[in-house]
Amino acid sequence: MIVQCENVANLKMNACDQNFMKDALAFARAAGACGEVPVGALVVADGRVVGTGFNRREERQSPLAHAEITAIEEASRRLGSWRLNDCDLYVTLEPCIMCAGAILQARIQRLVFGCLDPKAGAVESLYRLCEDQRLNHQLPVIGGVLADESAALLADFFAQLRQQKRDTRKAERWPSPVEGA
Amino acid sequence: MIVQCENVANLKMNACDQNFMKDALAFARAAGACGEVPVGALVVADGRVVGTGFNRREERQSPLAHAEITAIEEASRRLGSWRLNDCDLYVTLEPCIMCAGAILQARIQRLVFGCLDPKAGAVESLYRLCEDQRLNHQLPVIGGVLADESAALLADFFAQLRQQKRDTRKAERWPSPVEGA
Repeated sequence: MIVQCENVANLKMNACDQNFMKDALAFARAAGACGEVPVGALVVADGRVVGTGFNRREERQSPLAHAEITAIEEASRRLGSWRLNDCDLYVTLEPCIMCAGAILQARIQRLVFGCLDPKAGAVESLYRLCEDQRLNHQLPVIGGVLADESAALLADFFAQLRQQKRDTRKAERWPSPVEGA
Repeated sequence: MIVQCENVANLKMNACDQNFMKDALAFARAAGACGEVPVGALVVADGRVVGTGFNRREERQSPLAHAEITAIEEASRRLGSWRLNDCDLYVTLEPCIMCAGAILQARIQRLVFGCLDPKAGAVESLYRLCEDQRLNHQLPVIGGVLADESAALLADFFAQLRQQKRDTRKAERWPSPVEGA
């Protein structure tokens, strides 16, 4: 019976997580539409969104303008506290070292992410920072929620970027007759 | 002869590093005067200070308001770029995971820090994040510059904090005759 109850709770939790991840994906798409690497994030307290963010590194020319940092910044401002220990963070891509560190600093209670980042991910791929018992905060991490959608967004973005670069090189090597006249 | 030249270069570098670290210590004192954990930081480009910061977590109620983050934010704004690859960062305390991550994101060319942080330091104590060859940026790290001054500032701050807590508890247990009348 206990196992059954747990399963029901997990199912509910997953449905909720998927809904919030869908919202985070909408923010990721907003980033992509602005020419930024498409990553989106939400901070949720008691089922209510209190912070949102998407990657704006190029627009703001700030190395700090990752989706998670922006969402945490907004949540702290709205809740008037640096302690976000009643908050969950949703992000479409596995957090990097900086963002995992910010999640730990903010005492986020639970992290849900989309797809893995094998080159820079710091909660599963390169490091498992949210589990480090030497630090003064640890938190459960749920990865792989709507991972395919998150990964497809990124793959499409980088494919387009490569195509644009190829087109630019081609145009440089073979200027059109009018331009070259 | 080469060794001698190298030594002279090192001495010059150290004198310069010490001067910038003195400035960073002044910012750390400013943090302490505001009741914040006293940590200060500078970003320096070509011998010119382009960003400064001190810990303001409590004042701003932001988990992101560490000295390094504030200094990087200011430097990026002033230089109009997220790439700070011509910049050195000076900080009085070994950076935490979040700040080491931000240093890597900003492509800082060189990190100079004061004292170690055995509980949370992420460039020497718990992790050596600035040396990780799997990441797309690495940088040289010089630790221990004016370490005693940096450590003394922190030790004094925490000693005062403990004394204040003891005084508060004592006052709660033994109210003064006038207040208790």
